[in-house]
Amino acid sequence: MKFSSKIKITLRKSILDPQGKAIEHSLKSIGYDSILDTRIGKFIELLVEADSPEKAKQITDDACKKLLANPVMEDYEFETTEL
Amino acid sequence: MKFSSKIKITLRKSILDPQGKAIEHSLKSIGYDSILDTRIGKFIELLVEADSPEKAKQITDDACKKLLANPVMEDYEFETTEL
Repeated sequence: MKFSSKIKITLRKSILDPQGKAIEHSLKSIGYDSILDTRIGKFIELLVEADSPEKAKQITDDACKKLLANPVMEDYEFETTEL
Repeated sequence: MKFSSKIKITLRKSILDPQGKAIEHSLKSIGYDSILDTRIGKFIELLVEADSPEKAKQITDDACKKLLANPVMEDYEFETTEL
């Protein structure tokens, strides 16, 4: 069985996001004054082969912990759906 | 009214994703053979002030088209929720 895992990785709220601030300033400079805050993260899509949805979620979670996200600075959440 | 817009920006399927391939190889080298494909995109969260959900969606869509996404190489989708 194949599963698609869609992972969102964001900087923790307490950590300054200079890339987000830069985009916020750019948006303001082209007239978007109603955008009050901007934060940037990563979006990762994995195609996982596993025997069960639980196993696919386990593999995704392990991959996030070991490689994809930095647990000190980042939070992650993901959704796994069968294809 | 304040709205949160969560935007996912991904490279179009036809476009090679070298960053995704690099992560795929790293995952394989640490033993994750069951991850068959990896694609990387951006995740952007905007805090938008608007009079209605429609207006907030319009602002988000405009910001994606004008600044956040590259319409030639990237696809985007977003969800706007009231806070």
